[in-house]
Amino acid sequence: MDTSQETLKEKIKKQGDLVRSLKAAGADKTEIDAAGTRDYNDKEMAIREKIFSTITSVFKKHGAVTIDTPVFELKEILAGKYGEDSKLIYDLEDQGGEKCSLRYDLTVPFARFLAMNGTQYPNIKRYQIAKVYRRDQPAMTKGRMREFYQCDFDVAGVYDPMVADAEVVRIMCECLTALDIGNFTIKINHRKLLDGIFEICGVPEAKIRPISSAVDKLDKLPWEDVKKEMVEEKGLDPVVADRIGEYVILKGGKELLTQLLDNKELVSNKNVKAGLDDMILLFRYLEIFNVLDKMSFDLSLARGLDYYTGIIYEAVTEQSGQPKAEDGTKIRRKARTDSDELDETTVGVGSIAAGGRYDNLVGMFANTSSGGIPCVGVSIGVERVFSILLQRAQLASVKANEVEVYVISVGDGLLEERMSVCTELWDAGIKAEFMYKRKPKLQAQFTVCDRDQVPYAVIIGKSELDRGEIKIKDMRSKEQGEGGGIVVPRSEMVEQLRKRLRN
Amino acid sequence: MDTSQETLKEKIKKQGDLVRSLKAAGADKTEIDAAGTRDYNDKEMAIREKIFSTITSVFKKHGAVTIDTPVFELKEILAGKYGEDSKLIYDLEDQGGEKCSLRYDLTVPFARFLAMNGTQYPNIKRYQIAKVYRRDQPAMTKGRMREFYQCDFDVAGVYDPMVADAEVVRIMCECLTALDIGNFTIKINHRKLLDGIFEICGVPEAKIRPISSAVDKLDKLPWEDVKKEMVEEKGLDPVVADRIGEYVILKGGKELLTQLLDNKELVSNKNVKAGLDDMILLFRYLEIFNVLDKMSFDLSLARGLDYYTGIIYEAVTEQSGQPKAEDGTKIRRKARTDSDELDETTVGVGSIAAGGRYDNLVGMFANTSSGGIPCVGVSIGVERVFSILLQRAQLASVKANEVEVYVISVGDGLLEERMSVCTELWDAGIKAEFMYKRKPKLQAQFTVCDRDQVPYAVIIGKSELDRGEIKIKDMRSKEQGEGGGIVVPRSEMVEQLRKRLRN
Repeated sequence: MDTSQETLKEKIKKQGDLVRSLKAAGADKTEIDAAGTRDYNDKEMAIREKIFSTITSVFKKHGAVTIDTPVFELKEILAGKYGEDSKLIYDLEDQGGEKCSLRYDLTVPFARFLAMNGTQYPNIKRYQIAKVYRRDQPAMTKGRMREFYQCDFDVAGVYDPMVADAEVVRIMCECLTALDIGNFTIKINHRKLLDGIFEICGVPEAKIRPISSAVDKLDKLPWEDVKKEMVEEKGLDPVVADRIGEYVILKGGKELLTQLLDNKELVSNKNVKAGLDDMILLFRYLEIFNVLDKMSFDLSLARGLDYYTGIIYEAVTEQSGQPKAEDGTKIRRKARTDSDELDETTVGVGSIAAGGRYDNLVGMFANTSSGGIPCVGVSIGVERVFSILLQRAQLASVKANEVEVYVISVGDGLLEERMSVCTELWDAGIKAEFMYKRKPKLQAQFTVCDRDQVPYAVIIGKSELDRGEIKIKDMRSKEQGEGGGIVVPRSEMVEQLRKRLRN
Repeated sequence: MDTSQETLKEKIKKQGDLVRSLKAAGADKTEIDAAGTRDYNDKEMAIREKIFSTITSVFKKHGAVTIDTPVFELKEILAGKYGEDSKLIYDLEDQGGEKCSLRYDLTVPFARFLAMNGTQYPNIKRYQIAKVYRRDQPAMTKGRMREFYQCDFDVAGVYDPMVADAEVVRIMCECLTALDIGNFTIKINHRKLLDGIFEICGVPEAKIRPISSAVDKLDKLPWEDVKKEMVEEKGLDPVVADRIGEYVILKGGKELLTQLLDNKELVSNKNVKAGLDDMILLFRYLEIFNVLDKMSFDLSLARGLDYYTGIIYEAVTEQSGQPKAEDGTKIRRKARTDSDELDETTVGVGSIAAGGRYDNLVGMFANTSSGGIPCVGVSIGVERVFSILLQRAQLASVKANEVEVYVISVGDGLLEERMSVCTELWDAGIKAEFMYKRKPKLQAQFTVCDRDQVPYAVIIGKSELDRGEIKIKDMRSKEQGEGGGIVVPRSEMVEQLRKRLRN
């Protein structure tokens, strides 16, 4: 063993020690390694796979298909799509060949896929659940990782107005309901409405996006701070800022829509008119889809990303995931001054799903012949969902494997007989295990059953086998009823187990 | 739009053109992009997900759990594990912080996980299905990709001899049978047996691994070429090489085991004896597991990787995946002179799953306190399986989405009514779609049903709705029977559909 191997061992040991000391400090949910990534163990994966399968089944219920794109893209594909956050893109080392970067999200690769295959997919409902990468400062306490999952559903294609948009919002509601993460509200707004309001208030065109970003912070900062950013950092006339302030404070339901429609100055603006027309249709459709009660029409919602062109929305949870301090008291949510995104797994009140319409992104990759495919989509913040469910779960009691039957011997080991019984169970499609020992102790075998929450044991002994019999024991009812075990002919073993497993 | 965007568009268009011209040339299975990666569309993903779920359910039947590790590891973790293939490792650009590399396989990250968490997992059956990366020359015609899936099952822990090994081999057989890729044989051998034979033949200790690598090529090269490599490239005494030649030509079943046991010179070697003892047990257990008939005890099997310490095995298919040339004739398989690995998606006769025992890899990462966990595992060559199944599938006829019911209007569009019916179906858990148009043509709606192979249509018309009725039409039986449609009360719609979908 050379010195570098020894050093590596030391490093890994130190990393292991760090993980252990973090656990001791109650931080077992945030085992971030040196590179800002982490492993997920078997029990954590059981929770994560449940989340993925829940979301996937909602997506499939709505006719979605999935595609797969590579983890890295040509560097140029990602360039110029993420504004100042582009500095967070991970690049591969130049080892000859094209320059590549790890994907930053799943939206840009999907748009690139559509640009390449647009003629084949004039319309598609696609979902993709995959890892993305950001060279962000890993934040141990916030659970912000450099590698994390995104879980996207998008509808691409030219359709009649707001129909696909409404279904995407319905899907977002179905997912959050199915995930059982507690109450949620969907803030909803329209980029054209917002842009129109900025125009009416007198924001110069070049300042519309920066001012929009400032408005987006109103959920974490008081108006005074946002106004300060508009005026001092972004050079907006304070009078204009105050006019904006009067509008972006508005929130409500359908009645807000009526109120805005009654405002002659507003509806005379082309953008406002287009936005409100969309919102009228959307609210009508969401009512049919039975999700109108979840909506909060909120003029302060602006969303950070530049590429949205129509409706935008963001689901927020209430209380469900308040992080606890070590002494058990709740941590007060701090104002977020940086541009928090969905991907952060910060638990607590916060955005848990978000999206909107983006009609021009595909066009950035394609010449007009196949390009310009309009899209609308949503991204479910699975890492945040995971944080909430992990906090709620008793990790030790999560069943990570799916074993239904443990084959146990009493007496002389009977390894080959246990193997033979397992073979019969496997052939019958029953999930079964046995202990990899020639002569295991009875108690050791029962302990595994308990630890892995295996519902049934098949118990074999020499004399029973000689009589052609085995014993089936219900491991959950201890010594009561079938917990004491019932003896059945070996030839009926599979059928008897199947009957019990069906229930 | 600036110039660089225009150039990017040109590039993407060129890439799209390349894909199209490849398709026109019949190469639609090998759309490799410039960086040696590729997208998978909805129908390809339907095939791939079927493969993954088939394999996963076999793994779970045997009690496996899954873990997740990051796509990149610290560069040092991968260093010194892959011999001369280390040059194929993808590094991330040094943008400050630790130096990282994309994972090259799933075995080394698993060993690193065990080294970090060994006390928590004295034994674990884990599977992992995930992408790995090799900066290899992408081979368009061979489908060799720089990003591809590996699908690994490993058992870690200290057990009685050969029990876990036998179950891993059984699992390999179950997977390949369930995947329905045709006949297969499992070549099986033992590193200690092989090493002992090399010792007896007079191979100097330092040359054992290089000579082992040469032997491994015997499935693609004639003995003369392998001998030449041993003697001319690796400096082995030709007499020693000839002695090796007499052994490595041997293959067979249990009778070969008896033949070797009868050879006094062989069994006097400690390594040979240990290897044969293991093989006796293994064959006994594989017989109980009902897979002995798949085994070919083959002394020429050596496997490339250095870290194996016990039994080694490799599944080969026969004929099932012969690649076709453009004129439809079969391509003769060329001798592989490079170190082909499982990961290559070359179709044709070849290795489709492989693995073995590696008892010392975890120890390379851990100090003795938690280290030294022995492991045995198998990797299923899913990319090769995909190539075989893709060749066999009529891609156009693959159903990519899972929609069960398409809600159709006759007459005046009835968009809101279609939305309302869909809402009812979604709430009942039925997978349903409707067309995102206010006034779709009847034929256009039927066309989607046909294209997406949707089994049932719910047809609504103004007068039926007024009477509280809808029509259910079986889309597969054309105008026969329920293909003509049956009228049911709307209140019974969900129940009537459920009944049909259950069948």
